[in-house]
Amino acid sequence: MSQLQRIAIAPSQLQQQQILLTKEQQHYLGRVLRLREGDRFIAMDGQGKSWLAQLAGEQAQVLELLSVETELPVSITLMMALPKGNGFDEVVRSCTELGVTCIAPVLSDRTLLHPSPQKLERWRRIAAEAAEQSERSFVPTILEPVAFSTGLLSVTNSQQYICVARGDSPHLKDCLQHKGQETIVIATGPEGGWTTQEVENAIAVGFQPVSLGRRILRAVTAPVVALSLITAACEV
Amino acid sequence: MSQLQRIAIAPSQLQQQQILLTKEQQHYLGRVLRLREGDRFIAMDGQGKSWLAQLAGEQAQVLELLSVETELPVSITLMMALPKGNGFDEVVRSCTELGVTCIAPVLSDRTLLHPSPQKLERWRRIAAEAAEQSERSFVPTILEPVAFSTGLLSVTNSQQYICVARGDSPHLKDCLQHKGQETIVIATGPEGGWTTQEVENAIAVGFQPVSLGRRILRAVTAPVVALSLITAACEV
Repeated sequence: MSQLQRIAIAPSQLQQQQILLTKEQQHYLGRVLRLREGDRFIAMDGQGKSWLAQLAGEQAQVLELLSVETELPVSITLMMALPKGNGFDEVVRSCTELGVTCIAPVLSDRTLLHPSPQKLERWRRIAAEAAEQSERSFVPTILEPVAFSTGLLSVTNSQQYICVARGDSPHLKDCLQHKGQETIVIATGPEGGWTTQEVENAIAVGFQPVSLGRRILRAVTAPVVALSLITAACEV
Repeated sequence: MSQLQRIAIAPSQLQQQQILLTKEQQHYLGRVLRLREGDRFIAMDGQGKSWLAQLAGEQAQVLELLSVETELPVSITLMMALPKGNGFDEVVRSCTELGVTCIAPVLSDRTLLHPSPQKLERWRRIAAEAAEQSERSFVPTILEPVAFSTGLLSVTNSQQYICVARGDSPHLKDCLQHKGQETIVIATGPEGGWTTQEVENAIAVGFQPVSLGRRILRAVTAPVVALSLITAACEV
């Protein structure tokens, strides 16, 4: 099963055991993946469900609901200060592979980039592609960028960690508490790090400052390292 | 101290408390970093030692040997099947930040790339830059690419793991044994994974097959995830 091609569909495309394929999906399945009438593929609704489906003209016939074994039993939100250049693309891709649930890009005091609206579409497309390639049944949500102070207000009822590069914070690995069905929020900073005020604001709303080790990681490396540790701790 | 600029020097450049700077280093310090006569910086010999130094013409005066707190107490070798494109550049950079000791690029059955000799120089330059930026006092060794079968023969007396994407291998996090001063070798595969024969050959010389989780990681993501788990387990 795992070798079949995967595509992401919207839940509304599924009607009475038929998947109504968009023009883009028809092109992708037929021209890019070279599937022919009757060939099988996996359709994922991006909300944790996936189906074995069979290509039939402009539609696909649903053959069976698949059991999902690739999703983590926790919800993980990455809150990341936007790095410069195109660095965020790769973070979205890697963290989706690792199993992130939601990515919340934030603008920090030291963020240089104010992304164009097209960026958000691009990140969502990357997340959908990476979810397919990593055989996930869930496409992570990419939120619209907001100020870090605004992002902090939206966080409730979870384990919350903010990564800081220097100082005596305990290592993330020693702080993670895996009790089962939980929600974890991890915040990583921009080039140059969070400002002292930003860290204090995060602590004030319940974030715990943590270290990812004694070496200084780039802004684009830190989220992947943090997600590696969290997903390994939560993997069943 | 941590905010000073860092450069890598060869051990032979240090003579009687003076560092004889190369033309490139003089250019880098003066023109790129904009240091002036009498300004301080940190010189690292790439073998675990670093010194506080002061610019003095074409030389630098050594002021003091620095204590090193950024290196791990273990030796970690990453043996990685060369990915396609320029993906290896980013792996070298991220794994250097994380604390890798040695990177051994290998050619596997599914490796498409046969690197040019210039690539090796490029990777070594990236490792030196990343060591500086991450405030390490040790520049990882990048070995010349060899066939995977040849690389396997050079591994002795260490904990040896080979990452496999599918199957029932135990998770790396559950296999790592941290007993103090050890040597760890971790092997990660190319796009499409190791062949069955390659995994069997590795097992025959003492490698343990391990998983990095239930989702399928790209060839360029897996080494960063593996190094994140190993360095976190070994951090003191």
